[in-house]
Amino acid sequence: MNYYVGIDVGGTKIYALVINEKGQILGRAKLKTGNNTQFNIVFERILECYRMACSTANIREDEINAVGLAVPSSIDSNRRIIKHAPNLGWKNIPIGDLPKEKFGKPAFLDNDVNMGTFGEYYFGAGKGYKSIYGMFVGTGIGGGYIANGVIIRGVNNTASEVGHSIIKMNGPQCNCGNKGCLEAIAAKVGMISYMKKLVDQDGKKTILDKIEPNWRTTVGSSALRKAFYKGDPVVLKALKRSARAIGVAAANLITLVGVEAIVLGGGVIEELGEFFMPRIKNSMVKNTFADGAKGVELLQSKLGDDAIALGAAWFVRLPENQAMLFR
Amino acid sequence: MNYYVGIDVGGTKIYALVINEKGQILGRAKLKTGNNTQFNIVFERILECYRMACSTANIREDEINAVGLAVPSSIDSNRRIIKHAPNLGWKNIPIGDLPKEKFGKPAFLDNDVNMGTFGEYYFGAGKGYKSIYGMFVGTGIGGGYIANGVIIRGVNNTASEVGHSIIKMNGPQCNCGNKGCLEAIAAKVGMISYMKKLVDQDGKKTILDKIEPNWRTTVGSSALRKAFYKGDPVVLKALKRSARAIGVAAANLITLVGVEAIVLGGGVIEELGEFFMPRIKNSMVKNTFADGAKGVELLQSKLGDDAIALGAAWFVRLPENQAMLFR
Repeated sequence: MNYYVGIDVGGTKIYALVINEKGQILGRAKLKTGNNTQFNIVFERILECYRMACSTANIREDEINAVGLAVPSSIDSNRRIIKHAPNLGWKNIPIGDLPKEKFGKPAFLDNDVNMGTFGEYYFGAGKGYKSIYGMFVGTGIGGGYIANGVIIRGVNNTASEVGHSIIKMNGPQCNCGNKGCLEAIAAKVGMISYMKKLVDQDGKKTILDKIEPNWRTTVGSSALRKAFYKGDPVVLKALKRSARAIGVAAANLITLVGVEAIVLGGGVIEELGEFFMPRIKNSMVKNTFADGAKGVELLQSKLGDDAIALGAAWFVRLPENQAMLFR
Repeated sequence: MNYYVGIDVGGTKIYALVINEKGQILGRAKLKTGNNTQFNIVFERILECYRMACSTANIREDEINAVGLAVPSSIDSNRRIIKHAPNLGWKNIPIGDLPKEKFGKPAFLDNDVNMGTFGEYYFGAGKGYKSIYGMFVGTGIGGGYIANGVIIRGVNNTASEVGHSIIKMNGPQCNCGNKGCLEAIAAKVGMISYMKKLVDQDGKKTILDKIEPNWRTTVGSSALRKAFYKGDPVVLKALKRSARAIGVAAANLITLVGVEAIVLGGGVIEELGEFFMPRIKNSMVKNTFADGAKGVELLQSKLGDDAIALGAAWFVRLPENQAMLFR
């Protein structure tokens, strides 16, 4: 039997799981990333989490064939560089053969949302479709595009960044420098800007002041959920606007490249799926050209916390994928 | 030697060409579509044009292996229906085996912009790239997307309709019913609406009143060119706005699916390429996420009038493509 480990390296936690060659999960482990996010320090914790997962799965480390690491950054696979992971404070980290040396076996690195979409494609909501586009809505909006089993990366590894597709020319300022990106309207960063305007300029009141006094800087998806269920009008307006915008971006995906299914995930969708899914669908159908949305599925992700690590483990099982990154 | 005919069926002209199995053009023919655009009448003229092209090429009709027809409509290939060709006044035309029967050999139908992009992919500006996206700017904006030699059609044959991707939520009304489509800003329909506003509401003057008195309804690309070179400020504003918007749509293609090259064509680009190409490129680079546009080519189409017919002829040469449409 062959075994693989996938490790989801996030800003707050490191999450590892062990699978067999059928994709069955044999064990999991979780560690806080810790406050010191210096690359070498985090890498030691990644190794620790890896050992814990092997132990939980009752698999010896020397039985593991390959390790897949997923990080919240775009990767320059030719130069072997982690380009920019704001959540970890990493910028242009050269990694060379480090993963392979540290694990003592093939170990590969990829973008977390690509891996999460890959997991959903084979084991989750996207199972059975030829092409899916994943959109993961949290502080920002990440994306992943898989067509016929292949992760679409683009010339500069920037493809599938749906959060930075422009849906409103001259619209709200985005952190990326452009204006009117989906993320600047529909992700939590966009909702916060909009809610600040509603409160500060239009004089509306929000119970976020009580639930999450810090909401002008950062707001938890669960706080948005609470405020919504308490009938907060400011949060409601922001959520509706977000759903409309995500629907427009989904419509554009259908009109431009005709995907079969769109999979939505991330903290915001997980907390408020029952609100978001039907509204996004309405906006998607309405804004798609002609009858383009007919039969196109809008699905909520199914794998939750497992998606990214499972995708990474499943991805590295193939030698050609191991070869693709970090030759 | 095998020979193939491609026929570009447009609202004003029918254009046919004969190629050999290397894609070399052996003969061409052109006929006016005529005022009576009833389907059967037009089909007789298509046959006439076909015979003329064979004659020009010095090839007997019985030497032709297959015929590819390209029409300005989306095609329902399962039900064998031409869905809607506004330029010809056709709506839901069932064609069944008619082409095959009339030509007495495999004869297939596809969308004109798909075929034009296919032509550019193999013989024109897109030669040598794995994936290209074609944008053809005229009265509206048509698109075609080819990845690894395959025409991307989408679940409902509506993929690659880049003219109806939404780049400005709540923007100008589009003829398709939605708001803020690229076409409603950047194509001639969008320019006309905008120029009417500049003249009627803002009191600007335009020499189009002299050059093309009918410009509020329809305006030739050559009239736009003339007005631009005479320094008309209204036309200049409309052209600049159009270039910015096309650049945003191109940026979205890179950010969403990472194409290698974008090929621009159509009457507006052919007349004003020297104005449009650098401006579209600027806007594309500026509006693409991160360094995504680096190395992505923005190219002007090369095949001119031949593109669609050549693409159709080259497409039907493969038995699997013949089988794909109209089994």
